[in-house]
Amino acid sequence: MSKLLIVGTVAFDAIETPFGKTDKILGGAGTYIALSASQFDVECGVVSVVGDDFPQDYLDLLTDRNVNIDGLKIVKGGKTFFWSGRYHNDMNTRDTLDTQLNVLADFSPVVPDHFKDADIVMLGNLHPAVQMSVIEQVESTKLIVLDTMNFWMDSELSLLEEVISKVDVITINDEEARQLSGEYSLVKAARKIRDMGPDYVVIKKGEHGALLFHKEEMFFAPALPLEEVFDPTGAGDTFAGGFVGYLSNSKDISFENMKNAVIYGSNLASFCVEKFGTERMLELNKEEVDKRLESFQALTQFEINLA
Amino acid sequence: MSKLLIVGTVAFDAIETPFGKTDKILGGAGTYIALSASQFDVECGVVSVVGDDFPQDYLDLLTDRNVNIDGLKIVKGGKTFFWSGRYHNDMNTRDTLDTQLNVLADFSPVVPDHFKDADIVMLGNLHPAVQMSVIEQVESTKLIVLDTMNFWMDSELSLLEEVISKVDVITINDEEARQLSGEYSLVKAARKIRDMGPDYVVIKKGEHGALLFHKEEMFFAPALPLEEVFDPTGAGDTFAGGFVGYLSNSKDISFENMKNAVIYGSNLASFCVEKFGTERMLELNKEEVDKRLESFQALTQFEINLA
Repeated sequence: MSKLLIVGTVAFDAIETPFGKTDKILGGAGTYIALSASQFDVECGVVSVVGDDFPQDYLDLLTDRNVNIDGLKIVKGGKTFFWSGRYHNDMNTRDTLDTQLNVLADFSPVVPDHFKDADIVMLGNLHPAVQMSVIEQVESTKLIVLDTMNFWMDSELSLLEEVISKVDVITINDEEARQLSGEYSLVKAARKIRDMGPDYVVIKKGEHGALLFHKEEMFFAPALPLEEVFDPTGAGDTFAGGFVGYLSNSKDISFENMKNAVIYGSNLASFCVEKFGTERMLELNKEEVDKRLESFQALTQFEINLA
Repeated sequence: MSKLLIVGTVAFDAIETPFGKTDKILGGAGTYIALSASQFDVECGVVSVVGDDFPQDYLDLLTDRNVNIDGLKIVKGGKTFFWSGRYHNDMNTRDTLDTQLNVLADFSPVVPDHFKDADIVMLGNLHPAVQMSVIEQVESTKLIVLDTMNFWMDSELSLLEEVISKVDVITINDEEARQLSGEYSLVKAARKIRDMGPDYVVIKKGEHGALLFHKEEMFFAPALPLEEVFDPTGAGDTFAGGFVGYLSNSKDISFENMKNAVIYGSNLASFCVEKFGTERMLELNKEEVDKRLESFQALTQFEINLA
């Protein structure tokens, strides 16, 4: 079985959308990535940190899904990272109401020995220094996938650029791709970002889908149009988890297979947004996932015979 | 050969984009639709009106492409409809600088006898009263396609609703679909609009592609990601022209074939935006069109085997 190493926050979130608000619930990039990747038959481990205020029930949600948490450090007397945000009516923009780094402030990741030879490493959005430390600890990895965000472009650009130079795939959203490259056209932006290191660039456009770039080739996966988007939190991480989970499981990191991975990622993300937080991902079954994959095929596949 | 009747403005445009500005050039929804539809082997006629300030050269551009202009009235002493606009830096929004209706103010469309039995009628964006008059003049038409915009929703809603109740396909942009339906979710918006009459709803999302809705089915065509969008003017009309041109030529108005039509429309629209006004459409050849169609296939087609 392929090994997939995931680095990312495991956290408490409090979310407000036009549909309602939550108390502190399970959140964090590492959580969403792991819940999504664990839909596939892969050996999956998470490197992260929480405080001892983090409930055993939440840990069990991960281990119940065969997610290895040997690399999840529990800091005694520490408090878990907390994020709180409010979505606007269009669900495409949000305000951060509160961020409490807590145990994340001094986080020094330790990759368990068993995962040092992971086939694929997924670096979820975190301080670039943490991401770099993980890159330095792994050996003979076939593919490193990086997620990041504008916050690190603003505050830690040179370190982030060093991380970017060492990864194979980067996933960022359209505005971040524009910021990082200084190009408005996403085609030009992707080319400039590839020049920074990664062979593959995935640009996430939220409800408008995702673009995969490699050399002079492009692939596009739409987001499934939904009756209602209930809570977009974690959609990008769920996409990334589906992407690496599928790649790990199929043991094929060609561009052709990455197209499928982007579709699987979009498919899983379409479930994530249907309920608050991780709720929908926790109840998801394979039958639903496969059925919706057929919707993606119907949505995008056509038959034109070029004369 | 199938007959395609097009109703829409034939006009002068003056356009400003971040890349430059034009004097009065050839424009109008009817023009863009006809130039796009004439890429296909169909018998295509335009119903419209111009003043006698409209150059013979521009008329020749249409007739050279086998577009019948028997229904194009030339008003002696009249001035041609003029529109002027300026695009913002993101190219997604624009300000109208000037609109001079001129001969369009009193336009009463007359469908030539030869086109009264058109197989497909394309009602370009115009006053709903003009669109209704054309609907009343045609007989035994297999498919009526309507384009409209928010301006008519604001000023002539009840008349527009009457037109909508009589057509088979409506093409509008995402914001207009939301305005017309009162629904933010495009899935819900399309359902409400289908309840108003049309069996098929096409929602155009500009650079984010187009969605086709029919019953409980959906199809999505992306816009081809481009190095540079030079001038978006006419892209929506070029899309519509490709859509009806392909349907006319293939003589198949099933939902399955409409998927192809949406792809052909997106393909032609991707050329339109590469130069100012109609310039790119006028120089287009079949080889380029077919080659780019292959790009659309590469962009969207994937191979997932569902177990």
